[in-house]
Amino acid sequence: MGAVRGVLLDLEGVLYQGDAPIEGAIKAVSQLRAAGLGLRFLTNTTTKPRRDIVARMQAMGFEVDIAHFFSPALAAGQILRDSGVNRLFLAAPTDLAHDFADFELVDHDVHAVVMGDLYLDFHWTTLNQAFQMLRGGARLLALHKNRYCRRGNAIGLDLGPFVAALEYAAGVKAEVVGKPSPAFFATAVANLGLEPDAVLMVGDDIEADIGGAQRSGIRGVQVRTGKYDASLTHDITPDAIIDSIAELPQCIAKLSSL
Amino acid sequence: MGAVRGVLLDLEGVLYQGDAPIEGAIKAVSQLRAAGLGLRFLTNTTTKPRRDIVARMQAMGFEVDIAHFFSPALAAGQILRDSGVNRLFLAAPTDLAHDFADFELVDHDVHAVVMGDLYLDFHWTTLNQAFQMLRGGARLLALHKNRYCRRGNAIGLDLGPFVAALEYAAGVKAEVVGKPSPAFFATAVANLGLEPDAVLMVGDDIEADIGGAQRSGIRGVQVRTGKYDASLTHDITPDAIIDSIAELPQCIAKLSSL
Repeated sequence: MGAVRGVLLDLEGVLYQGDAPIEGAIKAVSQLRAAGLGLRFLTNTTTKPRRDIVARMQAMGFEVDIAHFFSPALAAGQILRDSGVNRLFLAAPTDLAHDFADFELVDHDVHAVVMGDLYLDFHWTTLNQAFQMLRGGARLLALHKNRYCRRGNAIGLDLGPFVAALEYAAGVKAEVVGKPSPAFFATAVANLGLEPDAVLMVGDDIEADIGGAQRSGIRGVQVRTGKYDASLTHDITPDAIIDSIAELPQCIAKLSSL
Repeated sequence: MGAVRGVLLDLEGVLYQGDAPIEGAIKAVSQLRAAGLGLRFLTNTTTKPRRDIVARMQAMGFEVDIAHFFSPALAAGQILRDSGVNRLFLAAPTDLAHDFADFELVDHDVHAVVMGDLYLDFHWTTLNQAFQMLRGGARLLALHKNRYCRRGNAIGLDLGPFVAALEYAAGVKAEVVGKPSPAFFATAVANLGLEPDAVLMVGDDIEADIGGAQRSGIRGVQVRTGKYDASLTHDITPDAIIDSIAELPQCIAKLSSL
């Protein structure tokens, strides 16, 4: 592993929580940019379209460019367009339809079911509707498969468990689009114009962020903010652990000198 | 395999559908009994307590004895009692509480989460409540893990997908109590006083009924009623397939002469 020349940043739980930046996050992003590092933003968020995420971050005070944002909805659109799909059942928050503007969003005779995080709207009826389409031969795309997430002060079920429910019901395996999909990391790394071993991923999700990055040859830095939970056991070891994004510039200096 | 001396009968989809007996079912049960076969009723139903199931079948005209009914709720009670558990979170239809009358049914500090089929009441909030208890170290018991079932004329999601959701969220494996659990079949076979190779299981669920029986050394007869769906592929081959329970007496005569 050589010097760090690019950084992939997770958003919620790393740069901000809810509507507030994590302490020191705005300054840290500026410092990284001033140090000449390439930055890309790699989120698994499925509740808002890309333009809304960027606008919200700009309102918080982050200097960011929409072209540097990679979301699973954008990646899913590309995958489906490349395979000639145009009729979708979007089991995701209504706002996300903006990222699928060039598809027919319908609820019958679809080519694919695309699942995002419906949160409180996950119930038997919606899942059963998707199940009927899978029985009819539709493909299943999961924007991600995160097990749990933090909302406000509580850790709770994320999209992943509901993807697992449909996989089990229909006896199929979802195509997971966002992190930890190697293709998703590869797109962002290619956009940086770097090799994976010159890139860091910074995230709060040990599986999607850290495990996913490492399987793609990217070093993974775990922050202790967001959904980080010291009590959960797993078999993934981050390349570094920091209290928050505010410590990232120092951490990179240390990793680059190893 | 020798002569058939006992029969395990699934209920919904085999003997009745909704509130009506399947054509020929009452007569078939009488014929089996008149032929000296031992009968036991082995259901994965989790929506009603045992006494209600039996009362409903008697009202339909079946001559049945409550002592011959084996349900996952009864089996779960036994398993939990044997391991000293007394505080439960019952994520199941309210009526089922009757089968857990000797437990404390609470929603915090529980030893175990017991999942039954909540059907339309499966939503994020209930599943998340159970998830918090699993994070706190509670055991997860699934009364069964059937993928789908038939309600009225429609095939739809059963309990299994929601068990899979919680297993994935919490990174645990549920103890599946009902069919296809070998322990569940073994209890009913022991109650008949027979060896498995003298017993048939008759069901409409290829996995829970037929696959489960065969893994316990019991022959499995598939009926084409209930949730039977010729379009679904799987790798289980029933020992016999009949249009309905009405054909069972002839089928047994044939199997016994093999």
